[in-house]
Amino acid sequence: MASTLAEKIIAHSCGREQVRPGEIITASIDLLMMHDSGGPRRVASRLEALGATVWDPDRVVVVSDHFVPAVDIESAEILALTRRWARANGVRHYDSVGICHVVLQEHGHIQPGMFCVGGDSHSTSGGAFGAFMMGVGATDITAALVTGEIWLKVPETVRVNWNGELAAGVSAKDMMLFLCASLGMGNENQAFEYDGPAVRRMSMSERMVLCNMSAELGAETGIVTADAATLHALELAGRPFAGDIGRWQSDSDAACLANHCFDASTLEPQIAAPHSPANSRPAASYGRVAIDQAYIGACTGAKLSDLQMAAEVLKGRKVARGTRLLIAPASVEMTARAAADGTLRILTDAGAILLPTGCGACAGMGAGMVAGGEVCLSTTARNFKGRMGSSESMVYLGSPYSVAAGAVKGEICDPREMLAETA
Amino acid sequence: MASTLAEKIIAHSCGREQVRPGEIITASIDLLMMHDSGGPRRVASRLEALGATVWDPDRVVVVSDHFVPAVDIESAEILALTRRWARANGVRHYDSVGICHVVLQEHGHIQPGMFCVGGDSHSTSGGAFGAFMMGVGATDITAALVTGEIWLKVPETVRVNWNGELAAGVSAKDMMLFLCASLGMGNENQAFEYDGPAVRRMSMSERMVLCNMSAELGAETGIVTADAATLHALELAGRPFAGDIGRWQSDSDAACLANHCFDASTLEPQIAAPHSPANSRPAASYGRVAIDQAYIGACTGAKLSDLQMAAEVLKGRKVARGTRLLIAPASVEMTARAAADGTLRILTDAGAILLPTGCGACAGMGAGMVAGGEVCLSTTARNFKGRMGSSESMVYLGSPYSVAAGAVKGEICDPREMLAETA
Repeated sequence: MASTLAEKIIAHSCGREQVRPGEIITASIDLLMMHDSGGPRRVASRLEALGATVWDPDRVVVVSDHFVPAVDIESAEILALTRRWARANGVRHYDSVGICHVVLQEHGHIQPGMFCVGGDSHSTSGGAFGAFMMGVGATDITAALVTGEIWLKVPETVRVNWNGELAAGVSAKDMMLFLCASLGMGNENQAFEYDGPAVRRMSMSERMVLCNMSAELGAETGIVTADAATLHALELAGRPFAGDIGRWQSDSDAACLANHCFDASTLEPQIAAPHSPANSRPAASYGRVAIDQAYIGACTGAKLSDLQMAAEVLKGRKVARGTRLLIAPASVEMTARAAADGTLRILTDAGAILLPTGCGACAGMGAGMVAGGEVCLSTTARNFKGRMGSSESMVYLGSPYSVAAGAVKGEICDPREMLAETA
Repeated sequence: MASTLAEKIIAHSCGREQVRPGEIITASIDLLMMHDSGGPRRVASRLEALGATVWDPDRVVVVSDHFVPAVDIESAEILALTRRWARANGVRHYDSVGICHVVLQEHGHIQPGMFCVGGDSHSTSGGAFGAFMMGVGATDITAALVTGEIWLKVPETVRVNWNGELAAGVSAKDMMLFLCASLGMGNENQAFEYDGPAVRRMSMSERMVLCNMSAELGAETGIVTADAATLHALELAGRPFAGDIGRWQSDSDAACLANHCFDASTLEPQIAAPHSPANSRPAASYGRVAIDQAYIGACTGAKLSDLQMAAEVLKGRKVARGTRLLIAPASVEMTARAAADGTLRILTDAGAILLPTGCGACAGMGAGMVAGGEVCLSTTARNFKGRMGSSESMVYLGSPYSVAAGAVKGEICDPREMLAETA
């Protein structure tokens, strides 16, 4: 009987031929990721109380991204605990600096067909590599860390097909904001599989945005079938895929909960109004909304390709007076690459203020918090009320193109205007 | 009767021919600087209660550097208040992003012969431009803001003459650590005047370190007579000096409290051990001191020339595993220049983690705080117990050369070893 990619991976993870949506199964974990917030500081004492140990330290990746860099003694102590715990428990992968989802990508940890769990809601990002990766809380992480297993209800698959080609100035972020507005945020227990010519043309970074923001759809995960781009990225990361990617794709006749088809070429830049990604509509439809802070950061908005998108807009331009543009690159490695390829120069020439790598203001605990009454336009994935600071602040979401353009104009605008001028 | 430069400026500021050490006078203020920590959030309500206004908004510079970027709602609100207050009170210079002492330099605010006050203990930095600038607290700032005047006791002048030339890998920071160890930190009511061939060869950034760390000597201020380098810097900043610098120098026969002479060419790189700059001794004299965190930041250690010193050491090298190297450039403008001239590339290639511009961990309120039991080697000016985080942390001070070298070796070392290898 035909199966979707998600079902195939789950079946493999529990040693079965096939699984069906709605079944509850116990999966073996190929890779477990946890970060400094939901990781050691939550699980260490529980493991100790249980007298339990880590099932396989080589399958565990610990990333410090929420409390980096330490801004107070408490965060400094959490980071020190995280490092100590990792070393004491034989976890070798613990000291890369970057947002966890991006670090996993940079080191090629996630491979097609893997069943992975991450202690962060945006762990769905890993699906960009043709893996099944879901986010869980610290209690589930503790149990998974000891047993190497986790239970789940097999999700329905929803297929989203993007035909055509994205126009200049439009990106994966716009696709997902559009999707949040179209389908809402209540798509629980569903695996979103993205495909179509526009997705096939995408870089891995852009595919990660699709899978990442599947969490905003309320989905269990997002997934993109591996192809040549995936294999190339894994090679570059020094972890070439040894298996057969032909095995890890949906059967064409597999049953799905829904099949959506959209045309990428007609998609306009989208902006989500406060306080939900589902409040998205075309950037051009906004009247004058003045911006106090433009924020380019987080796993959905500050990878190298995101910084390059922003640079396309910012080249030869200056941030408007009265608006501050904050840019927090997604990892130290990407910062170095942006320094090497001239991107950082363009950003800083425009007057951008560089923030440290980490989850930062997106997680509500780092640099870039917003005061009451202030308006922020942000590349982050979520604009829930108060998430980036005061509950009286207003956070809008957009692509790196849109946020950069907003910083230059000092208000929300369609970035295609500026890109057209440049061209 | 002969006068020192400090006495001449003070006399001018109170409309007198001459003043003598120990006299209490009332000076007119040419420039008043305050930052987000001691500034509007402290003075706004006091002014309101007094029904008083700012004496001359054009002579006031407000810089946000302690709470930038906002890491919580409280800091976001303080920054918003700072901006609002400046606009409401007609202060035009309020939105440059960088450490206050560096922003003043970049914009040419401080000119030879000026009498200036700053709401920060390291305001003594301004003396590098042949001005008299002293640091005061928020209460004095409030009064000065209303009256444009401030009282002070005329300080004694101490002259420090540096003969010879600094060796490669030795810098102004080493001079000041050496001086703190030699003279102690109790030199109250003294103005330190730096001169000699080694000082004349120095960039304005290096002279600022001399004046800045005069605060560590416990002095009222530090000062360097203006010369061609000063005039050139003011021109570059777009504020060429219109006066006669010949007027603003000490008379050769002026009475001084002390005249110190040192030989720059024999000075070794210095490291201050916890918990005082006065605990300085040659870097080479330390045994094995492993470093958890190397911090290149603050007004004494993260200006463009400081970043370039670090890059000299870091070029082609990598930060040691187990040590993190954090770099917080001193201003947005300097970040842009470091991006343009290739410095940021060298730093990030070595594995440095970029932190945002601002006072940061030096002020104990930004990124880079240190946990209990951790060792930090830092370019900041002070290593008072607990200043950079836990009171159980150990902070050592050194030059950008020394901190970069320590990051590569993972322990305190003499940076000249590495520079010799490179050459």
